[in-house]
Amino acid sequence: MDYTVIFQPAGCRGKISCGKSVLTAARELGAAIEAPCGGGEVCGKCKVRIENQTSVTPVTGKERKTLSAQELADCYRLACCTEICGDAVIFVPQESRALQQVVMENGIARDCAVNPAVKKYSVELNKPTLADCRDDFARLKAALKSRFIQLDKQMAIDYKVLSQLPALLRQGGWVVTVTLWQDKEIIAVEPGRSEKVYGIAIDIGTTTLAAYLCELTSGVVVAQASCMNSQVSYGDDVLSRITYCINNEGGLAKLHHAIIADINNLVGTLTEKAAITADNIQDMVLVFNTVMHHITLNISPEAIGSAPFVSVIKEAVDVKARELGIKIGTGGYVHCLPIEAGFVGADNVAVLIAEQPYKQDAMTLIVDIGTNGEIDFGNKDGVLSASCATGPALEGAQIKFGMRAAAGAIARISIDPETREPALAIIGATEEQTSPVAARGICGSGIIDAVAELFKAGMIKSDGSFNKNIRTPRLRRGLDGKWEYVLVWADETAIGQDIAITQKDIRAVQLAKAALYAGAKILMRKKGVEKVERITLAGAFGSYINKENALVIGMIPDCDPAKITVVGNAAGEGAKLTLFDKAKRVEAKQTAQFVRFVETAAEPEFQEVFFQAMYLPHASDKFVHIDRILNKIPG
Amino acid sequence: MDYTVIFQPAGCRGKISCGKSVLTAARELGAAIEAPCGGGEVCGKCKVRIENQTSVTPVTGKERKTLSAQELADCYRLACCTEICGDAVIFVPQESRALQQVVMENGIARDCAVNPAVKKYSVELNKPTLADCRDDFARLKAALKSRFIQLDKQMAIDYKVLSQLPALLRQGGWVVTVTLWQDKEIIAVEPGRSEKVYGIAIDIGTTTLAAYLCELTSGVVVAQASCMNSQVSYGDDVLSRITYCINNEGGLAKLHHAIIADINNLVGTLTEKAAITADNIQDMVLVFNTVMHHITLNISPEAIGSAPFVSVIKEAVDVKARELGIKIGTGGYVHCLPIEAGFVGADNVAVLIAEQPYKQDAMTLIVDIGTNGEIDFGNKDGVLSASCATGPALEGAQIKFGMRAAAGAIARISIDPETREPALAIIGATEEQTSPVAARGICGSGIIDAVAELFKAGMIKSDGSFNKNIRTPRLRRGLDGKWEYVLVWADETAIGQDIAITQKDIRAVQLAKAALYAGAKILMRKKGVEKVERITLAGAFGSYINKENALVIGMIPDCDPAKITVVGNAAGEGAKLTLFDKAKRVEAKQTAQFVRFVETAAEPEFQEVFFQAMYLPHASDKFVHIDRILNKIPG
Repeated sequence: MDYTVIFQPAGCRGKISCGKSVLTAARELGAAIEAPCGGGEVCGKCKVRIENQTSVTPVTGKERKTLSAQELADCYRLACCTEICGDAVIFVPQESRALQQVVMENGIARDCAVNPAVKKYSVELNKPTLADCRDDFARLKAALKSRFIQLDKQMAIDYKVLSQLPALLRQGGWVVTVTLWQDKEIIAVEPGRSEKVYGIAIDIGTTTLAAYLCELTSGVVVAQASCMNSQVSYGDDVLSRITYCINNEGGLAKLHHAIIADINNLVGTLTEKAAITADNIQDMVLVFNTVMHHITLNISPEAIGSAPFVSVIKEAVDVKARELGIKIGTGGYVHCLPIEAGFVGADNVAVLIAEQPYKQDAMTLIVDIGTNGEIDFGNKDGVLSASCATGPALEGAQIKFGMRAAAGAIARISIDPETREPALAIIGATEEQTSPVAARGICGSGIIDAVAELFKAGMIKSDGSFNKNIRTPRLRRGLDGKWEYVLVWADETAIGQDIAITQKDIRAVQLAKAALYAGAKILMRKKGVEKVERITLAGAFGSYINKENALVIGMIPDCDPAKITVVGNAAGEGAKLTLFDKAKRVEAKQTAQFVRFVETAAEPEFQEVFFQAMYLPHASDKFVHIDRILNKIPG
Repeated sequence: MDYTVIFQPAGCRGKISCGKSVLTAARELGAAIEAPCGGGEVCGKCKVRIENQTSVTPVTGKERKTLSAQELADCYRLACCTEICGDAVIFVPQESRALQQVVMENGIARDCAVNPAVKKYSVELNKPTLADCRDDFARLKAALKSRFIQLDKQMAIDYKVLSQLPALLRQGGWVVTVTLWQDKEIIAVEPGRSEKVYGIAIDIGTTTLAAYLCELTSGVVVAQASCMNSQVSYGDDVLSRITYCINNEGGLAKLHHAIIADINNLVGTLTEKAAITADNIQDMVLVFNTVMHHITLNISPEAIGSAPFVSVIKEAVDVKARELGIKIGTGGYVHCLPIEAGFVGADNVAVLIAEQPYKQDAMTLIVDIGTNGEIDFGNKDGVLSASCATGPALEGAQIKFGMRAAAGAIARISIDPETREPALAIIGATEEQTSPVAARGICGSGIIDAVAELFKAGMIKSDGSFNKNIRTPRLRRGLDGKWEYVLVWADETAIGQDIAITQKDIRAVQLAKAALYAGAKILMRKKGVEKVERITLAGAFGSYINKENALVIGMIPDCDPAKITVVGNAAGEGAKLTLFDKAKRVEAKQTAQFVRFVETAAEPEFQEVFFQAMYLPHASDKFVHIDRILNKIPG
């Protein structure tokens, strides 16, 4: 007996045999649940909330010991101890979501209509006879229109699909499934009947790519994958990529082919995970900053790099995947969301349609952290946006022991202010290997924690320099003679050498956080406000940021931590929403026109604002919501 | 001082310096005039009619000797003796048109609106500033819409053009010329100002291709070229091509690539002639029979080959040239005219929109001769069409000494009924080499003449077999022991061997003419008529057919020769009209729906009708209009 099981907020759903544990079900359906003990009923980390108690086996003795009375009353269970015995909806709370998902974090689940741009229609055709010798295409169109009355528009067919049409119709014994794009172009024909429609949303960052394979009839994310942007070998940030294009013959082509190869690799990974083929992918939505947008489309980004910062096209682009060399279904389109201005691209539009600040009353600051950071500030009366050249430090790049948020990355750090000894949380391995993992490096959230914790422990000063008066073997001169703080001794690592935070790393974090803070400050001044009411922290790694530590280092303006929300990869979320609901494409167009772009670096006060923000937490601005913490900081 | 000179009916036009001869002007502008003596004022063949006497120098003494009083009164002149001294319109009569144009014959000139599907618009843009930092595409669209008020529609841009847009705008100092397709898609952007718009029309026959490079703002055919269809090495007729596709792995791909290579070669030849580049070609119209249509579009023609003879798409296809591997302007489209049914394809639709029988009262028979022949019969009350498997004999293929209508081809033959000696007309060389040319072979019109003349001279009988009672050294057994008639002795040829018509050649002509006659007869019966009022003979080589000889061999039903018109390549003409006037695309659609297709081979009486038509001129039908000729035929 199989039951339908849905995991929220990821939305993963599928059929599960009676008697399987919730943890097993989660693995089968791609909803990652943290289970450091590997499902051995030991660690108690795999807490989930069951929405309907009759759908699972009763509470076990083990659970009674591990879960609090309140948790039991709130229908929390341990995924490893609970078995499916009915159709179930299961909520996986933030703390139970597996760390290895970090780059491909779903973000906060959102209500979303399921009305994709690509839809499938199965039809049976009359076989041709001498009395009815209509051409294949006319026969197909007539069958579609008589079966689905909503298809009243002129209908075109992709040329490559047309060229395969006779074989496809005959293979399927005149029963075929047609994929229509925007109800006006046939972009695929499959023999026989087929229901599932797949699309891929990709957030193309300067440093990392996060991709989501979605099943578009059910609104389910089937698989996720991420990778580094291979362009990093040609430059760390958008400006250096532009410079590469300008100074190197064939430079644009190289960068373009690098990103297309990344996309094709992600398509391969995702389709393999879902046991489908790339041919099954009928739609793709891409979001990116303006420079990544241009390079992905093989368009020179040169004019974006200098005043007056002109892009080639702001409106949404629909282009056949094959024109870009992207290998999905032959007739499939790639939809690029519209870009705003300067470096503020389709990724920020995606963040906005996911977060919808323009529908809210509260003055909200949205900080989307990446190598190219974007900030939005405003409410239903108007939203301003700006770009911040943060550099890749907050994504773990350009940091001595930096790495992306994958297995072995130090993701959370706390430092005891008395002993100056660190406590670390390391991202676990893949689902298959759930045993504890030794540290390999530090990812972005760990780097923010490190700077904040060293600052709180009095080991670095407000200007970011190490306090050399502190005596601990962890604070030392490295082999290069520069000061550093050792987080993990060599014998406890997977790399056989001490993992340390260097003075240079701290500087990189200061530059990044100052860029974000200065951008936010200038938008606040433009709006004439002193305080933000709400802050939304987004970014591919955003869900693991310790928001209090973000305040401690002054990355964001002072705000009640209760009003700070960490939403994960909101750009990726917006991309997914656009796959699931074509109305989001219209909303994106309106949003791109509604939001006003501010070229913050061109503001006269920028240098001064930026300089003051270099201090921890700030040269002059007060952080009343963390005074309690800051007052404890020695010296 | 330059003058505008226009040659009719070709429509070639251009600027010519004062003092140049009409013959030189014709060569410069691509209007081929027959001048066997090479412009030496000797042969008197280069007669032209000057529409305005004041535009040329006065009549010379040489002309007074060569031209008749009537010709002089009718304003006829010799092109080699007449110099340009004003804007001139010059008519080149049929007999003066150079033979080497035969495959690329213009046909009869027709009134045609000049309103092409692609148009150019030059605009100057405001340079971007910090105050006006619109994206390049938005800036371009706004400039176009403000300068040309008719461009009110939504405007798209070809992706490849978009990717080049920033460079093109800046190279041109923000002055650019945009090529719009159907006023809705930007398919090309050139730096600076540009006016001429080029397109190419190609008639893709089973055996030969005829291509026309046209300048679309003036309605002028700038250059013409032709070549063999390289697919002939895979089969001589459409059925053998289908068989090749079915029986050979990758067969379709081979045939497809062969035809695309031919098209690209023709583009190269034409653009070289006109001293432009392939990038300048912004539009292409293709006409072909259904099988060539499918193979050119890389679509399997398998289903067309057997009952119920289903094609994949009948409606017109617009496809980016680059999708087919055709190398013209990056964003350019290829427009394939709609096809009818069975083997009756876009070429017949092109013939129909050129000849417009559906606008006429007289019951007209149109015979389009090619390897796959098409016939249309009817008037404004309805038109029937049919396909005839004539084989390639009438294009000079599958004939022992057959060749296409190029330099060295025997194009006209008469045989003295007394001496049984032939008189021949051989197609001249290229424009550059005007000296007399020795025979290399026999083209289609020569083959029809040969059969008709041998029949009239009593050397072949009504059943097509040689009359072996006739004594002449020319009628002999060949090396293979089969009978043949020697047209040219080896020492007078360019190939060093006797050129002969064999018994097998005569059989091939009989089969071809019987197919055409039988098709016409069945359509006449369907319409319930005994007589045709008018006959139009079309075909790539059609202008050189001796229409009386076509009656003598019974290729067409009996008709007053005065009512038989030879129009040349009407399919090519229809393709050109479609390039010049986009309204012809609408007319083609209506025509394809108006004409009723008859599967003649499926008619019960076909075999009998065909068999009777194998006889010269026919087993039983009377040819009253050539009785005088036929009555002279001995035995």
